[in-house]
Amino acid sequence: MDESAPRQGRSVFVGLVGASQVLGLASVVLTGVWMGHYRQGFAWDGSAQEFNLHPLCMVLGLVFLHGDAILVYRVFRNEAKRNVKVLHGVIHLLALIISIIGFAAVFDFHRAAKIPDMYSLHSWCGMATLVLFCIQWVMGLLFFLFPVASSWLRASYLPVHVFCGLVLLVMAIGTSLLGITEKLLFSIMPTYSKFAPEGVLANVLGLLLVCFGVLLGYLITREEYRRPPNPEEESLSVHFKTLTEGGSPTTP
Amino acid sequence: MDESAPRQGRSVFVGLVGASQVLGLASVVLTGVWMGHYRQGFAWDGSAQEFNLHPLCMVLGLVFLHGDAILVYRVFRNEAKRNVKVLHGVIHLLALIISIIGFAAVFDFHRAAKIPDMYSLHSWCGMATLVLFCIQWVMGLLFFLFPVASSWLRASYLPVHVFCGLVLLVMAIGTSLLGITEKLLFSIMPTYSKFAPEGVLANVLGLLLVCFGVLLGYLITREEYRRPPNPEEESLSVHFKTLTEGGSPTTP
Repeated sequence: MDESAPRQGRSVFVGLVGASQVLGLASVVLTGVWMGHYRQGFAWDGSAQEFNLHPLCMVLGLVFLHGDAILVYRVFRNEAKRNVKVLHGVIHLLALIISIIGFAAVFDFHRAAKIPDMYSLHSWCGMATLVLFCIQWVMGLLFFLFPVASSWLRASYLPVHVFCGLVLLVMAIGTSLLGITEKLLFSIMPTYSKFAPEGVLANVLGLLLVCFGVLLGYLITREEYRRPPNPEEESLSVHFKTLTEGGSPTTP
Repeated sequence: MDESAPRQGRSVFVGLVGASQVLGLASVVLTGVWMGHYRQGFAWDGSAQEFNLHPLCMVLGLVFLHGDAILVYRVFRNEAKRNVKVLHGVIHLLALIISIIGFAAVFDFHRAAKIPDMYSLHSWCGMATLVLFCIQWVMGLLFFLFPVASSWLRASYLPVHVFCGLVLLVMAIGTSLLGITEKLLFSIMPTYSKFAPEGVLANVLGLLLVCFGVLLGYLITREEYRRPPNPEEESLSVHFKTLTEGGSPTTP
């Protein structure tokens, strides 16, 4: 019974990661179906179809890819840290690019339709999330991918970086929920309270995003899923202080 | 310099706890000002004034008191665990009662105004949060205040209880933000985009709630603010397995 415990733990981990991917992908697909089927699809011409790119890009970039970029540290916790770190940075870069396209889409739509910017709680939370996400990405690059900071500074910053990453994921999900509510009240206010299919679909999307966030939060914070300490990596990191020599001084 | 480090750390902790209380109280006051000044105050007669009790009760109960109930484990981390545990349970009970009054207010208002219930994402998230909050409270009572579960079971459940408590706080804050957005779009849609003072005040309330949540999350998850292990409490707990003999087998 004792011998099978680690294998059981591994199965639970694989199951939870699989479930998180199903939830994340389902959220992206459901956003696409909502915008594609109920909101007349996508375009880049300042029309409402350009706006439709905004939710799709934000859910794909700032929620799904952002979450997966964090998750790589748990999924590949026995791989070389340097590789995982590069993967983490690359997925985050992809998330950032897609999110910026999503931001451009909504500002372009607002400009064409003469709708004021930045008045709603959704826009305030969204802007705060994207700006902090950019700062977090640049800080991560400087501290962990280029040997700018000392080992001590990197070790001190690491828990802050990890905490802020999770906070930003939660903020991205919360902002998405605000966006869903805004969009429904702008588009289908008279039928939303009659349980119109579009409203139910968007509500289900909101719940999927919440479940994705809870599962990611569990996988990231659970002690047993953390990267095991590797003394070889630690010493290399302390002595040479560069990414090419073996990663950061402590494990995220 | 080294000798003053713990004192400095203590000052930072006190400062952060103080800031969290300012943010939490400011959120409650701002909700009261919003409903009292812009939305014609409070009553219990099925009118819109009865609805106004809903946001006030939810921010006070499910956000501020819920957060503080968790925080007592960090603020009183050197007090007898039994007392802290009772305080934790009592504040949670208060939060639960106030939240249920808040729920009753909105359902009563809907009934009188013939508005359908439970169609919005806000209502789905809010109901999920309150139901899970009740389950979490009952489970906490059975596992940690009454000697129903074995020491092993209590130790296994503790990290889940702690994780769920934080998730529920985040869900409560997210649901509050959804409620703010809904209320603004129902009440002041034509002037919200013109930065009407009511809209700005409600947006600021939303940001205060986010900052309260981030600060609470930091204080609760930061390793150095956790309750130090107390071998005397541990052994008493393991041998006698009752609250009266010294608390749970591990520290939350």
